[in-house]
Amino acid sequence: MSELELAIRDLVVANRILAHESIVDAYGHVSVRHPHDPERYLLSCSRSPELVQRGDIMEFKLDGTPVGGDTRVPYLERFIHGGIYEARPDMNAVVHSHAEDVLPFGIAPTPLRPVIHSGGFMGARAPVWDIRDRFGDTNLLVVNMEQGRDLAQCLASNRVVLMRGHGFAAAGTVLRDVVRIAVYLPRNARVLVTAMRLGEVKGLSPGEIERRMAMKPDAPEAWRAWEYWATRAGCGDMLAARPRGVRKRPAKTRRRGR
Amino acid sequence: MSELELAIRDLVVANRILAHESIVDAYGHVSVRHPHDPERYLLSCSRSPELVQRGDIMEFKLDGTPVGGDTRVPYLERFIHGGIYEARPDMNAVVHSHAEDVLPFGIAPTPLRPVIHSGGFMGARAPVWDIRDRFGDTNLLVVNMEQGRDLAQCLASNRVVLMRGHGFAAAGTVLRDVVRIAVYLPRNARVLVTAMRLGEVKGLSPGEIERRMAMKPDAPEAWRAWEYWATRAGCGDMLAARPRGVRKRPAKTRRRGR
Amino acid sequence: MSELELAIRDLVVANRILAHESIVDAYGHVSVRHPHDPERYLLSCSRSPELVQRGDIMEFKLDGTPVGGDTRVPYLERFIHGGIYEARPDMNAVVHSHAEDVLPFGIAPTPLRPVIHSGGFMGARAPVWDIRDRFGDTNLLVVNMEQGRDLAQCLASNRVVLMRGHGFAAAGTVLRDVVRIAVYLPRNARVLVTAMRLGEVKGLSPGEIERRMAMKPDAPEAWRAWEYWATRAGCGDMLAARPRGVRKRPAKTRRRGR
Amino acid sequence: MSELELAIRDLVVANRILAHESIVDAYGHVSVRHPHDPERYLLSCSRSPELVQRGDIMEFKLDGTPVGGDTRVPYLERFIHGGIYEARPDMNAVVHSHAEDVLPFGIAPTPLRPVIHSGGFMGARAPVWDIRDRFGDTNLLVVNMEQGRDLAQCLASNRVVLMRGHGFAAAGTVLRDVVRIAVYLPRNARVLVTAMRLGEVKGLSPGEIERRMAMKPDAPEAWRAWEYWATRAGCGDMLAARPRGVRKRPAKTRRRGR
Repeated sequence: MSELELAIRDLVVANRILAHESIVDAYGHVSVRHPHDPERYLLSCSRSPELVQRGDIMEFKLDGTPVGGDTRVPYLERFIHGGIYEARPDMNAVVHSHAEDVLPFGIAPTPLRPVIHSGGFMGARAPVWDIRDRFGDTNLLVVNMEQGRDLAQCLASNRVVLMRGHGFAAAGTVLRDVVRIAVYLPRNARVLVTAMRLGEVKGLSPGEIERRMAMKPDAPEAWRAWEYWATRAGCGDMLAARPRGVRKRPAKTRRRGR
Repeated sequence: MSELELAIRDLVVANRILAHESIVDAYGHVSVRHPHDPERYLLSCSRSPELVQRGDIMEFKLDGTPVGGDTRVPYLERFIHGGIYEARPDMNAVVHSHAEDVLPFGIAPTPLRPVIHSGGFMGARAPVWDIRDRFGDTNLLVVNMEQGRDLAQCLASNRVVLMRGHGFAAAGTVLRDVVRIAVYLPRNARVLVTAMRLGEVKGLSPGEIERRMAMKPDAPEAWRAWEYWATRAGCGDMLAARPRGVRKRPAKTRRRGR
Repeated sequence: MSELELAIRDLVVANRILAHESIVDAYGHVSVRHPHDPERYLLSCSRSPELVQRGDIMEFKLDGTPVGGDTRVPYLERFIHGGIYEARPDMNAVVHSHAEDVLPFGIAPTPLRPVIHSGGFMGARAPVWDIRDRFGDTNLLVVNMEQGRDLAQCLASNRVVLMRGHGFAAAGTVLRDVVRIAVYLPRNARVLVTAMRLGEVKGLSPGEIERRMAMKPDAPEAWRAWEYWATRAGCGDMLAARPRGVRKRPAKTRRRGR
Repeated sequence: MSELELAIRDLVVANRILAHESIVDAYGHVSVRHPHDPERYLLSCSRSPELVQRGDIMEFKLDGTPVGGDTRVPYLERFIHGGIYEARPDMNAVVHSHAEDVLPFGIAPTPLRPVIHSGGFMGARAPVWDIRDRFGDTNLLVVNMEQGRDLAQCLASNRVVLMRGHGFAAAGTVLRDVVRIAVYLPRNARVLVTAMRLGEVKGLSPGEIERRMAMKPDAPEAWRAWEYWATRAGCGDMLAARPRGVRKRPAKTRRRGR
């Protein structure tokens, strides 16, 4: 498989994982920067992630223009992806999600901050972007590059930005990284909401956050989660090379609890 | 397929979607106005939506009388549908649901209002109908046209009316529209309840609500959700024509994550 | 099928429904009074309800003694059933459940009362039985007739009694009745807990409760729920006769969304 | 099967149960002390529990060194297991979990205490270990024996210790015991959180806790849960001998609700 084919295959797996873990559903999407051209990104045509196939993946310029005159219907909000790729040369994968458990933190004053170790990626707290601040009354969708750039500006050097009344956008160095962030953000949100009912909440210290952010996205512990999520989503046989010493699970035994 | 057969087929799909998305379960129902006669509507006989087949669909006059002397057992609460069709010539599809997450807003003073973009259809706030106001002590079921008309009066020009201690009724211009409303109302309710624990909640502005309500129910973004929900509910091959440029997913690959 | 065979078959279906609807899991059980002898009841041997088969059903005298010297391991807490059958000649089916959402109302002072129409069966409020009041420190299990009778005394003429730190017991005129009660009690509990966060909660009025309690357990609307739950639990082909006019769903089409 | 093969088989079943009951997911693990050598324990290589097979089980010395120069990638946090086995000769099985519902009690001052009978194993309250107390800023993972021993010291003579911002560790006399503890701890946590909204919560008395802790892990009631969980997790045919009088469920009928 060429590098491009591998990127497309992993993007399909990412779509499935995010759907299966309920981070995306009818809406939401995930993209990856083109492996050969940093001015392009790969993103499905307008289709729910659970249904996305290799043949649905389109190429876009950073400004959202489909490459090669592709006439398929694109996601209306692809400008979230382009805006972030443009502002963040260090990031190569983006998720946009409406995951319900994160939404309350986008519409109320309590900051979303890391309280469990797997939430450490978000820094001291997740910034909140309100489209109304600059664009007045809209239908809340990010439908052009001006809005996408404004969102990316709010994201700044963070990994996650909450979108008021809408959802969140996450950025990763690689696909596996942004998928992990997107899966764990709602969990941190749920734990924080519940813990607030039990008294003053002790979150991660600045030093702990720093050490969590320094963890490598391709360590064996990270691979373990990717393998698990992909297998649960029915994509176990689409997985890339695994770390040395971890034997591949033969497909026929996967479902029988042996 | 004739227009009537298409309407019946889509009504079966709607039943499945609402069941699969947990908007209806043992109870709850969905109807559509007859494509050829605005004085009639199509609704299943008394059966849980998950089990409804084409052959279960009955025709009713707006007053709830089965057409043609059909002796099958109808839903006791079909008057919810007839009452709304009678009062709202602009609406052509109705859902009645007991969805749990909406119920608290029907029995306490806090208004249910839109706080996420997908909740914008409900206007400034969802009205609450209490059957006891006009009819005193009952078993809370809407069992005649007098009650159905009273409910429709409370619905007024809105899309949704909460029914105290019971559930809600929703109205749509087309079937796809009312299904979307019914699926997203509980989500908005859940987010609002949780956000209230985080401080003062910022909801959609009047201008945002207006723009959300102006969005067309047959845009590609709306089709995406219908396709997704229908496929998850096992009705992927019963889908109507799709927007230009979106390739149909071949049935054989649908379940295998490719 | 003889009346006894029908009772056993319906008892197996009830076990499956309660398991599938998460009212029982590893623990919990359901019984029915013997159709020919009011001094006996039918109850599975000690096995999780999801796994119960016809061959697991045992007969017990009201005092918990297995009939005919049956040496299979019985449920330790069968005295819940015998105690209620003894005290309530009007009841012919009993469920014991640990359903999580009801437990908070057994360990805190807020009464569990009906706030949704499907919770009307519980009367003004569900009584709470604390085993410690009369028996001091125990492991909280009901392991003899003395405890079973004390529990039944607390149940009094109600349909449900909460068991502090443990679960609840429900009584029904027939099996379908007690299954419905057991399924809806947790739902009413969840709605009340959430509604309490939205202000003062309006529950069912005494007149509404009275009318809900007067509803017949074998009306078509009640059949609809039994058919739905049984079908979801995989027992669709074990269903008893259906109301006139409701066509049986052919087995082969049941799973295909037609 | 030799005693070692039986231990390995039961360990695979335990992995599946904990995964199916959502106590572990991508992360989390379960081990058992070696049946022939108390200075060793059995634990899978680094793999999500849902995917663990017999061939993944490795042997470790208590200090975390793989036996026999096994080069497969081990769990980074195996020192949780070794630390507890070293400190607790009375314990022979250990679970480490990130189960979400327990996390709030590790980051806020309200103690997690038993309020339902199935939570009685935790004693008066579950201790909380904060890695920062002794080790300052870390990434919160237990990655060496010094940390594992410090955790075990906090566990003391209890069955469960909460790990701030991370999860919990549980210890059992046998595998079935620790699995039961791990499954019921989150349930007790959820009930307590909800009950706190209903007024002052009545927990288990010291005498009740004592009697719950005295219950034997291999009573028929305990077997019932293990059989249920294993069957649900697809391992029904990997079960060990059952109590006298409980007939084995023939495999072919298991899924058909008979």
